[in-house]
Amino acid sequence: MKHKVAIVGAGQGRFGVREDASQRELAFEAVAAALKDAGTTLKDVDSMVTAVAADEFSFALQPSAQMHDYLEFFPKANFRVEGACASGSMALRVGWMTVASGLADVVLVLGAEKMTEVSTSQATEIMGKGGDAIWEYPFGMTFPGFYAMVARAHMAAFGTTEEQLAMVAVKNHFYGSQNPLAHMPKEITLEKALNSFMVAYPLKLYDCSLITDGAAAVILASEERARDFAKSPVWIEGIGTATDTMRIADRDALHTLRATVEAAKKAYRLAGIGPEEVDVATVHDCFTIAEICAYEDLGFCPKGEGGAFIEDRQTYIGGKIPVNVDGGLKSKGHPVGATGVAMAVEIMKQLRGECGSRQVPGAEVGLTHNVGGSGQVVGVTIYKKD
Amino acid sequence: MKHKVAIVGAGQGRFGVREDASQRELAFEAVAAALKDAGTTLKDVDSMVTAVAADEFSFALQPSAQMHDYLEFFPKANFRVEGACASGSMALRVGWMTVASGLADVVLVLGAEKMTEVSTSQATEIMGKGGDAIWEYPFGMTFPGFYAMVARAHMAAFGTTEEQLAMVAVKNHFYGSQNPLAHMPKEITLEKALNSFMVAYPLKLYDCSLITDGAAAVILASEERARDFAKSPVWIEGIGTATDTMRIADRDALHTLRATVEAAKKAYRLAGIGPEEVDVATVHDCFTIAEICAYEDLGFCPKGEGGAFIEDRQTYIGGKIPVNVDGGLKSKGHPVGATGVAMAVEIMKQLRGECGSRQVPGAEVGLTHNVGGSGQVVGVTIYKKD
Repeated sequence: MKHKVAIVGAGQGRFGVREDASQRELAFEAVAAALKDAGTTLKDVDSMVTAVAADEFSFALQPSAQMHDYLEFFPKANFRVEGACASGSMALRVGWMTVASGLADVVLVLGAEKMTEVSTSQATEIMGKGGDAIWEYPFGMTFPGFYAMVARAHMAAFGTTEEQLAMVAVKNHFYGSQNPLAHMPKEITLEKALNSFMVAYPLKLYDCSLITDGAAAVILASEERARDFAKSPVWIEGIGTATDTMRIADRDALHTLRATVEAAKKAYRLAGIGPEEVDVATVHDCFTIAEICAYEDLGFCPKGEGGAFIEDRQTYIGGKIPVNVDGGLKSKGHPVGATGVAMAVEIMKQLRGECGSRQVPGAEVGLTHNVGGSGQVVGVTIYKKD
Repeated sequence: MKHKVAIVGAGQGRFGVREDASQRELAFEAVAAALKDAGTTLKDVDSMVTAVAADEFSFALQPSAQMHDYLEFFPKANFRVEGACASGSMALRVGWMTVASGLADVVLVLGAEKMTEVSTSQATEIMGKGGDAIWEYPFGMTFPGFYAMVARAHMAAFGTTEEQLAMVAVKNHFYGSQNPLAHMPKEITLEKALNSFMVAYPLKLYDCSLITDGAAAVILASEERARDFAKSPVWIEGIGTATDTMRIADRDALHTLRATVEAAKKAYRLAGIGPEEVDVATVHDCFTIAEICAYEDLGFCPKGEGGAFIEDRQTYIGGKIPVNVDGGLKSKGHPVGATGVAMAVEIMKQLRGECGSRQVPGAEVGLTHNVGGSGQVVGVTIYKKD
């Protein structure tokens, strides 16, 4: 990368059904945690960028301004960045650019979504419009349906099994149970996952991520400022963003996300590393099949071998590459606008060795992978320990 | 500014009630015009950023991806930037950062909004949620009401008259009538403006900007690439973004927008100039009173003298500082997400001397001023001729 930008503070509030907090209050929690982590205050922050995925969850046209106001950050800059469920990673990209371009030295990147003020079916409808809103959504296509097709295509091409899908859920709930900020911090058995009710064949309840309220924040700093904060910085070494067709029927294959492959290529090239050098990753497990595809599309295992990869426990701590040891979208939860930022929070804490029972020993290089819509936009970011 | 970034191409489609075109088709028109202006193709563009203000106008969660898809820009990066009616200027800021940070050499900045697929009253409701969506909007406050209060405060403090407000509309329609891409390219008389129906006292129909479909695009390039295109570049010399409270009741005064004052300060400082050096400006005349406040808050005239400033025709060509000689939001139209980008298109063409009967002679320095919500976020940008 042409410029060095560090994460100097990271924080997340508790994910869950947060009837106790509004979106702005969730934002406040996360920002307060990030500031505390950095040992600083908002006075020392020059600029801000906010990720929110949907107007409709916020009942507002300008949700970022509501949170900015609650933080009393005026008159300093803030606006919203949106890339559906990859909004958080796009905001991180913009935060990185704000520092790298010299516009600001210390930047707050916030992601927040309050999804449970509408019903689960309404939330599924709202999210569904993140796919093609002309040719797919009006005809009944929402995300469970899309990922069910991805799973079927993967099973047909590579022999992936329903058990292997369920194993992703078991792993992520195992680690989520060790994360006090997770939405559903409880272990599940393979039987429980396989016997849960069918949502869209072959995806069952436990193959699906959660509809969650939550917020996360990171504080970025320039190379000159990176050592002025409480703890050691973590460096952003590679940022890749790539896109694909709006309409899934326009794609060559369903069992791969081209945007993931391309975004990863860019990020690896900028970081000057390959997938074998990644010690810990958070990937976009909005559905269990998405995590299996991510293993392959990010180069953690060859194409088609993602099912065997989880079956062999290669993505557990001790395996080849521990993935979603924070619980992932599956157990930690998926407040869409916050997700990409929360992934960066986890990697920051892993690379600092602060994750307790779910710490990946000796982790020096981390990766986050965040998917918007049905893969229309993907952000891959690579981080290195100081 | 630490880095030099140029605009090398600019284009806008016709603004209006565009029953003939979808949002993606409007985007295509604008992008095609910008590419033609630059003498290049999308193949030469590295990255993209898209401004859209409201999910609800697009009937989609991820409207930027729809337009990106229609341009077949995959797998290159694109995401959405939103700052209510200042979305376009925020996207321009992000486009600038993309180049200045070294992430890309040639960047497309697109703004688009299709507002007339809902009724005028629905559009007013959707826009209204750009103000405080908890303490104002649910109690009936939409933008005509907010700017009516601004006008009343300005009249009470400074003796500004309804005639002076109407004079802004007369000027902007005069110039809009010379702009073939304007939504309402017709001249109006002072009498017509004053006798139009009351919307929210003292604002009448002709004090209000238009609900418009439209798109605009600019192509940005690094200093190294800026001279590889068809025509001479225009340089971005200053970018200022500032914010204010969400709730207008939390502000010290109604007759000024603090975010405009602060954003202008930043932009002038970065450009190393003062307001007296600006030769041509486009300001956010969503209501006529907003243009009068902008004269003052941008430093074109002392506080309180904006009414006299228009009455003395100081913002006509030949006056002290020609403002909105493209017709402004008032006559050219206000497709919210496109507006900030369309302002940059106009300034680009003014500084290149391409504006025909409404050309400001010898213009070398331009300024755009773009307001989001009721002043929660403002972008001010300063441009110089090559």
